[in-house]
Amino acid sequence: MSKARKYLNIRGNFDLYRGGKLQDPSIAYETWGSLNQEKTNAILIFTGLSPSAHAASSPDDSSAGWWEDMIGPDHAIDTNKFFVICVNSLGSCFGSTGANSINPSTGKKYKSTFPVLSLEDVAKGGYEVIKYHGISKLACLIGPSMGGMTALAFEVVFSGLTKSCLLISTCARAASMSIAIRSIQREIIRSDPNWKAGEYDDKNLPISGIRLARKIGMLSYRSSFEFQKRFGRERVSIGHESDDLLSLDFEVESYLDYHARQFIGQFDPNCYLSLSRASDLFDLADHGGSLEAAMNLIRSDKILVIGVRKDQLFPYWQQEELYNLFKEAGKEVSLITLDCKQGHDSFLASMDDFRPPIAKFLSSI
Amino acid sequence: MSKARKYLNIRGNFDLYRGGKLQDPSIAYETWGSLNQEKTNAILIFTGLSPSAHAASSPDDSSAGWWEDMIGPDHAIDTNKFFVICVNSLGSCFGSTGANSINPSTGKKYKSTFPVLSLEDVAKGGYEVIKYHGISKLACLIGPSMGGMTALAFEVVFSGLTKSCLLISTCARAASMSIAIRSIQREIIRSDPNWKAGEYDDKNLPISGIRLARKIGMLSYRSSFEFQKRFGRERVSIGHESDDLLSLDFEVESYLDYHARQFIGQFDPNCYLSLSRASDLFDLADHGGSLEAAMNLIRSDKILVIGVRKDQLFPYWQQEELYNLFKEAGKEVSLITLDCKQGHDSFLASMDDFRPPIAKFLSSI
Repeated sequence: MSKARKYLNIRGNFDLYRGGKLQDPSIAYETWGSLNQEKTNAILIFTGLSPSAHAASSPDDSSAGWWEDMIGPDHAIDTNKFFVICVNSLGSCFGSTGANSINPSTGKKYKSTFPVLSLEDVAKGGYEVIKYHGISKLACLIGPSMGGMTALAFEVVFSGLTKSCLLISTCARAASMSIAIRSIQREIIRSDPNWKAGEYDDKNLPISGIRLARKIGMLSYRSSFEFQKRFGRERVSIGHESDDLLSLDFEVESYLDYHARQFIGQFDPNCYLSLSRASDLFDLADHGGSLEAAMNLIRSDKILVIGVRKDQLFPYWQQEELYNLFKEAGKEVSLITLDCKQGHDSFLASMDDFRPPIAKFLSSI
Repeated sequence: MSKARKYLNIRGNFDLYRGGKLQDPSIAYETWGSLNQEKTNAILIFTGLSPSAHAASSPDDSSAGWWEDMIGPDHAIDTNKFFVICVNSLGSCFGSTGANSINPSTGKKYKSTFPVLSLEDVAKGGYEVIKYHGISKLACLIGPSMGGMTALAFEVVFSGLTKSCLLISTCARAASMSIAIRSIQREIIRSDPNWKAGEYDDKNLPISGIRLARKIGMLSYRSSFEFQKRFGRERVSIGHESDDLLSLDFEVESYLDYHARQFIGQFDPNCYLSLSRASDLFDLADHGGSLEAAMNLIRSDKILVIGVRKDQLFPYWQQEELYNLFKEAGKEVSLITLDCKQGHDSFLASMDDFRPPIAKFLSSI
């Protein structure tokens, strides 16, 4: 757990978008830089599905964050200039209240009783944190991947609370193939005998299901081009294929296995399911009745959309769709197209390509 | 079981490419049309991973085959002109010997003891059938998907036994992403508690594993473009997302579920694993030391490669690779590029696009 983690403890009922309630939830977050006196230099970052709020190191925690090379003094997201807040998504398991948290009304973990989560709720978690800091308008709202959908939810639900918005490898609503991929991942976790309808023993997690779901995730996060360049048909060792059907013959199999095993124990399965399903259910068009109508609720003066052509999970056409929607609504919007080989994960794996356009955008707001 | 199914029962040991042996194996096949007196009008078809030899209906079996609209009198593969043989792959479970067959030396099913299978062995099964018919040279060898890799194995192992070759949505060796996808499918089956290291009870199959593996397969067989057009974000029913985490909300989920359930019980899990792994292990470059060297073993006078741009499992660059290899080896080769929306499965789902080039090619040989 990051030593830099702070908690906003909300008192009372927190109403959820799809009808549920959470009693006294907490939102975990980290901050970098200083809020200026006018409170006009704040940036709020929503994350993808799996990261914590530990986006970068800080004096309180020197360990590298998931966007370490992006956030810091004189970095693309310059903490000499901006006060940067990253929130752990409500529903996640890194400090914010989620299915793995204690339900105050029962004294037990929510587990399968956690109410249906929406990205609108995750956005509300971020809103509570900026309200707590007395920030009435963000300089910029930033969201990669699921965080981009959350940023869009924030824009329409808390209309007018940000000057600008930076959307990275995201979408207005999930594509059919992305729904299919996430649906299969969820089913795999639920098919693990240790799942026990979400009431799994914390010492006996559905690790086989988590490992397999993560492997499928990794296929969708990266690109076949990258896999071909990195692994091709490299063998783990020569003559390995003899007669063990269970052996991992190819480097690509070994790579997936290594990384999937790293994930086990890090992410609570119920929390994973909650956020995965929230990603599928989110539809910007629910706000106003159509995507076009939703645009009228968005008040950012300046918007940048960054997309990667090889993204399979949030395909490039979805970045064009967002750009066109903003353009047609008369917004000041730019679209940056990147050709990084890593596909969806490029904003993490190929930061060199992302830093210049992000720095440029933030210097213009 | 098709009433048109014939069996070639091989006597004695059948040596496998990677060192194993099968005692007295059978190869199931079907035929259409008549072999001419000179035995020069035969076409041999190798199938993709999952189909049986029942490629089309015939007087003995009027049920539709998997390539029904492709094979028949005056069809693209014209049975007035050609004697068409389709073999069930060795290792499969539709009549040919596979892991679900009785091992004559034990009187029990092979199951987990089935030796490591190679596409070279599947090719040899086809070779035995044409030898049995006294065919010394095929008019054409046809292979879609895994069947195309098998056709290439046939070309290099039984050099000079075909005049021409038609390769559809296939490759010289599996791409890294395709290996990754199949590896995960196999792991999912093996993770099912009913799998029991391949010694599953036939009345208690690892159906959850099979269902999930099939769903992942379906994502790779089709294209995200098709899913978006067909399903978009259509809901199964309105208001369904209330609070059941296990519900299928979207039409795309329901589609995958329906088709995956259809697959259960049809395909033996051990057989599936055998053929899936054989697809990963096949490398045309094993024959001669490089892909270029392998080309020198191929004697077909005329080759047609057909590829679909949206194919994710046998991506289009692999069709170009094959075309370029043949071209550089001085072969008479053409490449037909199709833009069907169904991706890899287009040769089954969009036959209208495939019939004209196939008919044209076969009329030219």
